[in-house]
Amino acid sequence: MIVRDRPNLLQLFFIVRGSIIRRILPQIIVIFLMSALIVWGHEESPNLVVSFNGSSLSLLGIALSIFLGFRNNAAYDRWWEGRRDWGQLVYVARGFARQTLVLEAEGEAGADMRKNLLRLTMAFAQALVCQLRPGSDESKVLRLLTAGEADLYRTARNRADLILRLMSADLARSKAAGAISDIQYQMLDISIGQMGAVQAACERIRNTPLPFGYTLLLHRTAYLFCFLLPFGYVDTLGWGSPFVTALIAYTFFGLDALGDELEDPFGQRPNALAIGALADTIEINLREALGETDLPPLPQPKDFVLM
Amino acid sequence: MIVRDRPNLLQLFFIVRGSIIRRILPQIIVIFLMSALIVWGHEESPNLVVSFNGSSLSLLGIALSIFLGFRNNAAYDRWWEGRRDWGQLVYVARGFARQTLVLEAEGEAGADMRKNLLRLTMAFAQALVCQLRPGSDESKVLRLLTAGEADLYRTARNRADLILRLMSADLARSKAAGAISDIQYQMLDISIGQMGAVQAACERIRNTPLPFGYTLLLHRTAYLFCFLLPFGYVDTLGWGSPFVTALIAYTFFGLDALGDELEDPFGQRPNALAIGALADTIEINLREALGETDLPPLPQPKDFVLM
Amino acid sequence: MIVRDRPNLLQLFFIVRGSIIRRILPQIIVIFLMSALIVWGHEESPNLVVSFNGSSLSLLGIALSIFLGFRNNAAYDRWWEGRRDWGQLVYVARGFARQTLVLEAEGEAGADMRKNLLRLTMAFAQALVCQLRPGSDESKVLRLLTAGEADLYRTARNRADLILRLMSADLARSKAAGAISDIQYQMLDISIGQMGAVQAACERIRNTPLPFGYTLLLHRTAYLFCFLLPFGYVDTLGWGSPFVTALIAYTFFGLDALGDELEDPFGQRPNALAIGALADTIEINLREALGETDLPPLPQPKDFVLM
Amino acid sequence: MIVRDRPNLLQLFFIVRGSIIRRILPQIIVIFLMSALIVWGHEESPNLVVSFNGSSLSLLGIALSIFLGFRNNAAYDRWWEGRRDWGQLVYVARGFARQTLVLEAEGEAGADMRKNLLRLTMAFAQALVCQLRPGSDESKVLRLLTAGEADLYRTARNRADLILRLMSADLARSKAAGAISDIQYQMLDISIGQMGAVQAACERIRNTPLPFGYTLLLHRTAYLFCFLLPFGYVDTLGWGSPFVTALIAYTFFGLDALGDELEDPFGQRPNALAIGALADTIEINLREALGETDLPPLPQPKDFVLM
Amino acid sequence: MIVRDRPNLLQLFFIVRGSIIRRILPQIIVIFLMSALIVWGHEESPNLVVSFNGSSLSLLGIALSIFLGFRNNAAYDRWWEGRRDWGQLVYVARGFARQTLVLEAEGEAGADMRKNLLRLTMAFAQALVCQLRPGSDESKVLRLLTAGEADLYRTARNRADLILRLMSADLARSKAAGAISDIQYQMLDISIGQMGAVQAACERIRNTPLPFGYTLLLHRTAYLFCFLLPFGYVDTLGWGSPFVTALIAYTFFGLDALGDELEDPFGQRPNALAIGALADTIEINLREALGETDLPPLPQPKDFVLM
Repeated sequence: MIVRDRPNLLQLFFIVRGSIIRRILPQIIVIFLMSALIVWGHEESPNLVVSFNGSSLSLLGIALSIFLGFRNNAAYDRWWEGRRDWGQLVYVARGFARQTLVLEAEGEAGADMRKNLLRLTMAFAQALVCQLRPGSDESKVLRLLTAGEADLYRTARNRADLILRLMSADLARSKAAGAISDIQYQMLDISIGQMGAVQAACERIRNTPLPFGYTLLLHRTAYLFCFLLPFGYVDTLGWGSPFVTALIAYTFFGLDALGDELEDPFGQRPNALAIGALADTIEINLREALGETDLPPLPQPKDFVLM
Repeated sequence: MIVRDRPNLLQLFFIVRGSIIRRILPQIIVIFLMSALIVWGHEESPNLVVSFNGSSLSLLGIALSIFLGFRNNAAYDRWWEGRRDWGQLVYVARGFARQTLVLEAEGEAGADMRKNLLRLTMAFAQALVCQLRPGSDESKVLRLLTAGEADLYRTARNRADLILRLMSADLARSKAAGAISDIQYQMLDISIGQMGAVQAACERIRNTPLPFGYTLLLHRTAYLFCFLLPFGYVDTLGWGSPFVTALIAYTFFGLDALGDELEDPFGQRPNALAIGALADTIEINLREALGETDLPPLPQPKDFVLM
Repeated sequence: MIVRDRPNLLQLFFIVRGSIIRRILPQIIVIFLMSALIVWGHEESPNLVVSFNGSSLSLLGIALSIFLGFRNNAAYDRWWEGRRDWGQLVYVARGFARQTLVLEAEGEAGADMRKNLLRLTMAFAQALVCQLRPGSDESKVLRLLTAGEADLYRTARNRADLILRLMSADLARSKAAGAISDIQYQMLDISIGQMGAVQAACERIRNTPLPFGYTLLLHRTAYLFCFLLPFGYVDTLGWGSPFVTALIAYTFFGLDALGDELEDPFGQRPNALAIGALADTIEINLREALGETDLPPLPQPKDFVLM
Repeated sequence: MIVRDRPNLLQLFFIVRGSIIRRILPQIIVIFLMSALIVWGHEESPNLVVSFNGSSLSLLGIALSIFLGFRNNAAYDRWWEGRRDWGQLVYVARGFARQTLVLEAEGEAGADMRKNLLRLTMAFAQALVCQLRPGSDESKVLRLLTAGEADLYRTARNRADLILRLMSADLARSKAAGAISDIQYQMLDISIGQMGAVQAACERIRNTPLPFGYTLLLHRTAYLFCFLLPFGYVDTLGWGSPFVTALIAYTFFGLDALGDELEDPFGQRPNALAIGALADTIEINLREALGETDLPPLPQPKDFVLM
Repeated sequence: MIVRDRPNLLQLFFIVRGSIIRRILPQIIVIFLMSALIVWGHEESPNLVVSFNGSSLSLLGIALSIFLGFRNNAAYDRWWEGRRDWGQLVYVARGFARQTLVLEAEGEAGADMRKNLLRLTMAFAQALVCQLRPGSDESKVLRLLTAGEADLYRTARNRADLILRLMSADLARSKAAGAISDIQYQMLDISIGQMGAVQAACERIRNTPLPFGYTLLLHRTAYLFCFLLPFGYVDTLGWGSPFVTALIAYTFFGLDALGDELEDPFGQRPNALAIGALADTIEINLREALGETDLPPLPQPKDFVLM
């Protein structure tokens, strides 16, 4: 996630970090050069390099804007839903720390149990990051697990879910032993269930991109449109055509590329969500709730980017 | 569901799998040829093949874009809601595996009961696939059922619902026998109820298409518009007209056809949801939760398509 | 609800059932004739029948498209919400059949109580249809009620709500007699409450149309716009003007009329929801859950329409 | 709320009740006259009263349509959310009448308590109307309260909330006296909580208008746009200009004014929600549930308006 | 939040408070002057200061409107979600005051506990304001805390969350001491959990702006578009060009700036939410529920602004 103040007018045009421009620059340059070539060709031999009435392209451009607008909206909704899911996790984890206070109040065995549950909650948050961002540093999870748990973790198909099952097994044992009541069990189970809901929602967003046919159709139309544009503008804009064409291409390709970034909110690009930082924040919150005082600093953005 | 990386610029124009183009190619070719014929006819005998000012069509085109945009949005919402429902099923099934740990902790009878409930949960997921995709392989369900259950299954009106009723009857017996408490019964009943909610939601999406009058109106307008277009472009675009007309037809027919595909998210087309794979994943998750180690591999896309 | 396969290209233009065209044909013909008259008048005496630049109408047409688009979206949302409510009723009724299995498991008195509750649930679904569609056949409800209940039913102000109160009174008696526990009572009460929520939501949709001022404004603008259109097109389109004008009128009037139909999803028009069939399905589902085997067939569409 | 059948074509143009036209007629007349003056001035002295190319205004008009569309959508969402909240209150009140049947079943003290709780529920609905519509007739609340309650009511800061607190205090006393169980208390508390949620939601909608800067920006742009329009149309439309300008002004000012009405759904204008009638309906529903037979008639629209 | 009646037509153009105009005036003046310079330059030496066909800019303008519309919609949704969260807090706090009546009914210890819990609830609301608006007056929180609590508060990482933990610890002690039952504990825990949910939601909105790349792309396009506009209008509008350009710039820059304000609903700008006033209202509501009679007045807007 890009964290920076609103740029002023001058900065506005020189920021590249977080801008989509680096990814689409080659295409824009191609469009610009092509457009310039067409203007030159049209001036040299108007019969060879034809032009046509640009206004007939307006319809296509407007249609494309509407469809791109809807697609970007859908992509943004996924991004924001992903953020909401992680906000939910923050809240459930903190709530879990509060709900387990009642265990602590009931004696030392309860305090140990609480410590255990919160430790596994931290591990769950870190494991979820690893699952959503393949290639992440698994040691952040492993340092929170016991040797036995770590072995299970390594062999599990769904690692984050395993950790939830470890928590539930713990609760089930306490329940069978009569250490916690039916209602307490129910309360804690609901919280663990909510963590599972967050996981399932994140997996859903990660594993189900926007329908491929939709993406493909819009990409193709956007490219064909931008390649046709210079022919339509050569007569009315002349040498202004490459500039206007490049600006339109910047807007359309830019939105298209941004849609791609937002579609996968757990990725590693600058505009993706800072789930790593959120998992660290959850860990710090829980450590504080456990009474630890030697807390690591809150995660800070590096070079305006928080991951 | 199409599973593939974002294509590069060159691939973009040569991908057919998942593209809508195969379904609408005939219509586009017809429009292209018709447009060419009109240009030729207009050149030969302008009095016979009239032209008219294309800008008067812009209005209709923009209106059509807006309405198509709304319709596609609605179709996508159905598609995404279907996916969310199945994500919900994944999470409920996993949660059920956790919640029933408490039964296991209470002795062997409880462990058997848990195994039974999870087996029926797997069967439910597979049965739901069969119900949503008529013609699916019912053996995936039957192999999970006992002979008596299979008989009931074959004669049931609503087969997936029957399996939920089998689970509830099991719970009710345990409850009446005093094996589980009121609260435990309530917790497990809520989970079964959520599975029923997923089923009802999927049935709703499957059985209630977008209002037929709406679909019909947009289809008709889209076709009439694309048939009129060449008359409007023949003067301004000349021989460019067939190409621009075909591009516009590609965009409009393509979005229209995509809307049709997304409207029925449980169908068998490439852009439909991979509910078969999701049911298999649920089964593997539950088998793992039951401690089985000889698990089948996770479902993989074939030829970029996961069904 | 219209139930039919996607029509092919040829059928597309000849389907009238479910199409909105029958309702708006008179208006379209009027517009067509008026437009033809204007073209003729303009050719005969251009000073009397003026024309003006059609492009100045584009703005109004686009604005109208945007507002009609929003309105249709709102109408569709109501329609879909109505469907969701009934899907909710399907699921709650089935869930109720499962939840009451625990009563059955506790002896004969419980089994009778269950039968009674499910019978009233069927009656509730049928009564809700009668309430939402005045003039429906009340005998479908009455045959499910005892003589005493039927008397109460006939005099009740809110008949569907009465049935829910009958169910709750039954439960309250059992609870007071100690036949069911607090938690069981709570579970069953939640289900009955959800049925009440469905009823209240359906009443809300039925009794609160879209703001009248909004509907009026859009109707008026759409009509005035279509009456002005021929004056704007007479110069640029000539004798093509009646056809394009009629096509535009078809699109705008059609969407407007469809919005009206979707706005009242429980009505009796072809595009309305099939709530009668849904109530019958609920009844069949519950009869099956009660172990009846002599079930009526599932409701089938008549002439492509399911009501 | 306007309650009337869909007008036919002729009525369409002569309905004023519920139409927004009375509020915006002065502005439209001003625009019409101004436009006529400009046409006349331009004919007399084209150098003094300039004209300019209207197509450059199209862009502004389309942008304005899009932004007005979004704003109206947001205003409608508020209106519909207000209606949903009141629908929720209807359902909670009826559910409360059902849930308290269990009190009645437990003896006379319970029956008295039930009567008391339902009486306060009626008072709550009426008090909420008074709070949302300052200046309403408070006697509708006071006649439902005891003398002591009425005194508290008159001095309370938040009167509707006071009534909920009276209900909770009643329940708390019964709970402390052991007359109702923990679970029963929880069930009833949830219902009272839902009434509180409805109140808070209505207060939120009433006290937080759409952002003022947004409203201001759109008003200003709409007015400036309509004042510029005649200059842009004078050349192309001539004496048709005042009519088209007035039609466009009618659409834009009308939507703007309607947005204002819908933004405050609890107001007293014709398009506002009929919350007075809803509160009366709730009262009648509860009286019926209490077994009263001498019920007042259901509220009827006066002059097509239900308030 | 701006609190004022709808301005009349004259006021409409002279209100600056709450208007966005003060923030964007410099840019508009620059655009106006630039545009005037271009008109002058074009008249003096048309070869040096070129013009081009403005209609080619329409496409870009419409696309920009659509994307700005979507962005503003997203920003408004965040603003309204923030308001909904605080409405939720109002309702939970009042509900908490009702739910704890049962403690009061059980004797003096319970009454003390209730007073304590409500005091901490007030402190939570004030602490949340301080957390969302850095630099707020912390004394509003501290005066509500005991010395011991204040010490913990000052050293806590997440101060609002600490207060919730203090409440839960209180409850856990009472629960362990047997003063409250399982169900009571569950009810109160759910309410505290909802306060935590509000906090997490507000933190999410505050800490996660709209994707930076999206904001950047729209800013850049809006500025480039407005700088190009005068070149496109110089021919068709002449000296009218600076005025129309400035009006368009006002609309686009204004919406852009408003989107920025709404994006951060907890900020200190006039269009931000009045969360300070809401926290004060919650405090007054709770003081009233505790039976205090010497209540401070409700917060009033200063100079039309409520913060």
